Amino acid sequence: MSDYKAPLRDIEFTIKELLDFIPHYQQLPSVEEVPEDTLSAILKEAAKFCENRLVPINRIGDEVGCQWRDGEVTTPPGFKEAFKEFAAGGWVSLAEDPEHGGQGLPFSLVMVVFEMLASSNMAWSLYIANYYGTLITLEKYATEEQKSLYIPKLVSAEWNSTMCLTEPHCGSDLGLLRTKAEPNGDGSYALNGTKIFITSGDHDLTDNIIHLVLARLPNAPEGTRGISLFIVPKFNVNSDGSFGERNSVSCGSIEEKMGIHGSSTCTMNFEGATGYLLGSEHKGLTAMFTYMNESRITTAIQAYALGETSFQGALSYAQERLQMRAPERTHPDQQADPIISHPDVRRMLLTQKAFTEGGRMLSYYCLKQMDITLKSDDPAAKQQAEQRLAFLTPVAKGFNSEVGIESTSMGVQMFGGHGYIAESGMEQHSRDQRITALYEGVTAIQGLDLLGRKALSMGLLESFLPEIELFIEQQQVEEMAEFNLPLQAAISEWLQITADIGQRAKTDVNQVGACAYDYLMYAGYVTLAYFWAQAAAVSLQQLSDGSDDKFYNTKLETARFYFRRLLPRTQTHISLLRESSENLLSIGSDEFTF
Amino acid sequence: MSDYKAPLRDIEFTIKELLDFIPHYQQLPSVEEVPEDTLSAILKEAAKFCENRLVPINRIGDEVGCQWRDGEVTTPPGFKEAFKEFAAGGWVSLAEDPEHGGQGLPFSLVMVVFEMLASSNMAWSLYIANYYGTLITLEKYATEEQKSLYIPKLVSAEWNSTMCLTEPHCGSDLGLLRTKAEPNGDGSYALNGTKIFITSGDHDLTDNIIHLVLARLPNAPEGTRGISLFIVPKFNVNSDGSFGERNSVSCGSIEEKMGIHGSSTCTMNFEGATGYLLGSEHKGLTAMFTYMNESRITTAIQAYALGETSFQGALSYAQERLQMRAPERTHPDQQADPIISHPDVRRMLLTQKAFTEGGRMLSYYCLKQMDITLKSDDPAAKQQAEQRLAFLTPVAKGFNSEVGIESTSMGVQMFGGHGYIAESGMEQHSRDQRITALYEGVTAIQGLDLLGRKALSMGLLESFLPEIELFIEQQQVEEMAEFNLPLQAAISEWLQITADIGQRAKTDVNQVGACAYDYLMYAGYVTLAYFWAQAAAVSLQQLSDGSDDKFYNTKLETARFYFRRLLPRTQTHISLLRESSENLLSIGSDEFTF
Repeated sequence: MSDYKAPLRDIEFTIKELLDFIPHYQQLPSVEEVPEDTLSAILKEAAKFCENRLVPINRIGDEVGCQWRDGEVTTPPGFKEAFKEFAAGGWVSLAEDPEHGGQGLPFSLVMVVFEMLASSNMAWSLYIANYYGTLITLEKYATEEQKSLYIPKLVSAEWNSTMCLTEPHCGSDLGLLRTKAEPNGDGSYALNGTKIFITSGDHDLTDNIIHLVLARLPNAPEGTRGISLFIVPKFNVNSDGSFGERNSVSCGSIEEKMGIHGSSTCTMNFEGATGYLLGSEHKGLTAMFTYMNESRITTAIQAYALGETSFQGALSYAQERLQMRAPERTHPDQQADPIISHPDVRRMLLTQKAFTEGGRMLSYYCLKQMDITLKSDDPAAKQQAEQRLAFLTPVAKGFNSEVGIESTSMGVQMFGGHGYIAESGMEQHSRDQRITALYEGVTAIQGLDLLGRKALSMGLLESFLPEIELFIEQQQVEEMAEFNLPLQAAISEWLQITADIGQRAKTDVNQVGACAYDYLMYAGYVTLAYFWAQAAAVSLQQLSDGSDDKFYNTKLETARFYFRRLLPRTQTHISLLRESSENLLSIGSDEFTF
Repeated sequence: MSDYKAPLRDIEFTIKELLDFIPHYQQLPSVEEVPEDTLSAILKEAAKFCENRLVPINRIGDEVGCQWRDGEVTTPPGFKEAFKEFAAGGWVSLAEDPEHGGQGLPFSLVMVVFEMLASSNMAWSLYIANYYGTLITLEKYATEEQKSLYIPKLVSAEWNSTMCLTEPHCGSDLGLLRTKAEPNGDGSYALNGTKIFITSGDHDLTDNIIHLVLARLPNAPEGTRGISLFIVPKFNVNSDGSFGERNSVSCGSIEEKMGIHGSSTCTMNFEGATGYLLGSEHKGLTAMFTYMNESRITTAIQAYALGETSFQGALSYAQERLQMRAPERTHPDQQADPIISHPDVRRMLLTQKAFTEGGRMLSYYCLKQMDITLKSDDPAAKQQAEQRLAFLTPVAKGFNSEVGIESTSMGVQMFGGHGYIAESGMEQHSRDQRITALYEGVTAIQGLDLLGRKALSMGLLESFLPEIELFIEQQQVEEMAEFNLPLQAAISEWLQITADIGQRAKTDVNQVGACAYDYLMYAGYVTLAYFWAQAAAVSLQQLSDGSDDKFYNTKLETARFYFRRLLPRTQTHISLLRESSENLLSIGSDEFTF
């Protein structure tokens, strides 16, 4: 069994030493102060809940899964008890406005806690994940009445929520959406349609579920410009907050999936269900993207969070499993050396470690930007944070999920045949992980967003790179040269290749699509290099200040590993980014097989 | 659902046009003649069996899996009926000596049929896979009496067989093996020990199961030099072929696995089980490697065979699924274009296609060498074939499985969220595939064998490269330059980096282990380039001879795709192969986490 222990030392390193969250929090108005020891205490308490309550029900969640009977979904054994305990602990309310029953802490802090949930029990964590996007969306678009009706019940976790977006014929392409909303004449609407792949669409954890549903009003414009967003509660809610009738929305079935078996993935049927417009008519997609962008960061977190669990499992196994003599014998008194003494096992462990801790740095950096976009009153700071977040969201989501899949697969690999067996726990992490590159927009969608929209149309690469250049300038100690030189070279190359692609795209309509995947991966490797260089700088500083904490040695060596053994992957991506799209399109659609 | 149709056109292209199996068969003595139309008829008949009998029971095999009760294993619904039909069709006997009830056809032909079994139903195919290694091992090491007792019953598929190798504490490291064999005084031995991960260890498909078991004789030397191989039948067999008592070997449990649920993976308990020495005392590993080397080729075949099924599923979906407008609209009359019109989907489809057809070329080439090693009476030809096979076996097994995992994962990716759902069939291929990089020696073991043993110690790279150079020399038409130039550059680089690593390994004991994985992948990409260049040459010749068969255009464009978009992956591998091992070993075994 692979047992997760919350990596508090690395989390605190990233928050406090690398990203300076404490002074950052002090600069945010309307956010409660978070003294350093309070921060640590919150994280420690969350770690305890995760290790003691969520880890033990992770495997049974996979084995038993959710059950569907007569339109009702039952979650796996122990899921409900853990949920109630989490709710009672006030964990969902951490970042919410005190006015709505929240604790007014910074948003980033909730998400750091979320990382631990996802590491411990990915399926369970999905019943929590939806809250964040829902609350942010309601805060931004709901009327005061809607806010006071729904937000407190969500914040207290008495109710749960979903986003209903996908339909059988429409996933990435929301313009094809068919669900209809017709005015009832009393300000409410009647929704008709079928939604699929609805995470937490039905379950037994809460008394009510608030669905956010994309649908078309009568005579709405075609395509994405004619979509509106609606609030559709499972149980109607009277204006005094009491329950009205059961709404005409029901779960028609749940999906049998590769992983996250404990998370209910529902087909939801809306048969004249009563809904309430959220935000403006036909502006549903904008509201939905508030939710979606938050969800993409949540997914970025899940991806390295599962990498963390897989890494921890592989590390213990590698330390204990005796097999073959290593090139340098480390345990001559034993029949064989532990496999951690073998170079190739170390290659895999260090890859997992570098991607996990790198994913954490990148994701927390994004969370810091989110804090600013949500709470800052400085327009310039806000604008810059919005730009950073817009640029790095597809990188964090797309890259973390792709390398997260590699990482959890390596966790299986290090166990040899044992990794393929359910008992090891490793194959579950790998199956659970696979979804991260699929939901909230597949990798190609992230690549198109990054290259076509964020880099080429909006020019956000140019606004991000000066930050890296400034960092390099400020780190002129000799020991940083091994990081600064390749980083400097990479950002020049990045700028150049982006311009090249932009140029070629003028005459080749397929160029952006052909480059989307490799550009995303290229961007990910270079961005992580920036964060690993920062980690190296902090560690070097500590060591030169006389620290004898081995943590900094290990961090520094992991940064070196990243630069020497992972960053070179850009070489292949850059060479593909120089290719025209021609070769991809040269075979007729019906001439692939004969 | 993803429905497999046997790719007979590509199989025949590879056999007949690329690798000249017909004249190759004519040169093999003691092998039945195989006229071209007979060959095609056999393949067509096998395809029919696979498509009609195996594909329909693939998903139920995954859903129901094997069941264990009171020491007996039941296979999933339909498995037994399909097995009986396959047995009755004489398919297991194809390549066996007519003396033992076989049909005397070439071995490679059986394995081409095996590809179709694995594509159709990987789990089911594993009940067949063991026959090949067992029969080859018995032919080589069994006494005449043993041969006549066991071979005919295996050839008729009345009985089945296993290889019992792994123990709980010993997988890759067979030196640690503990199972004991003590002489009974009557020429037989009593075996005691526990074996795990035994494929087909127990099941309900045949009346008897013949286990080949590695064990130690009393006073055997320690380590790998003290291991012997034994025949242990499930039911003892009297010298007249009739059944004696049930032997003291039993299945203690079966494993719950990530995939291949329809294949029984058994813990086998030997409690004084009667066994018979196969081959010489203490020479069990040599005999086992006869089996293992064959199994590695079988695994290489499974890996691209599952890639083929996943490719076919993804291709149909990509042709049908309408989503988003492609950069160049292909279906203006529809609401959206099929996703095959999107460049990134094509990138994935072509990657799957290039790896699948490339894996097929490489594997069939290995099979051709096996035919020669098994049947040729020309010592020089035999020696060369043995060298090629020794060098390319780890490449085929290690590389095909690694890129096979990527390929089936891409199959999931192209389906978007639907790929994560069991109903699509795509995630099953991905789970079934994952085992190929684990069993019969994990990838690192293949890399160590290739680099340390085959390339550096035995110098087999130098004996292989002249074949590629000769090919390049013979292809001096201008159209081949786009393939020949990068291929020539790659083989020079390959030779150079091998010498470099050998040099560094003299002073760095960890160098070979540190390079094992990247060297294997590097070798795989260059070797596949050689085969894709051959495919291009054959296609160019056909086109210049006036053929208007689109098959050749597609083949040529796929070769171009391979050279321009997959071969560049060597750039990253080569840059890692130039690294010292230092960075991998610089962190203490207990200093990875804090």
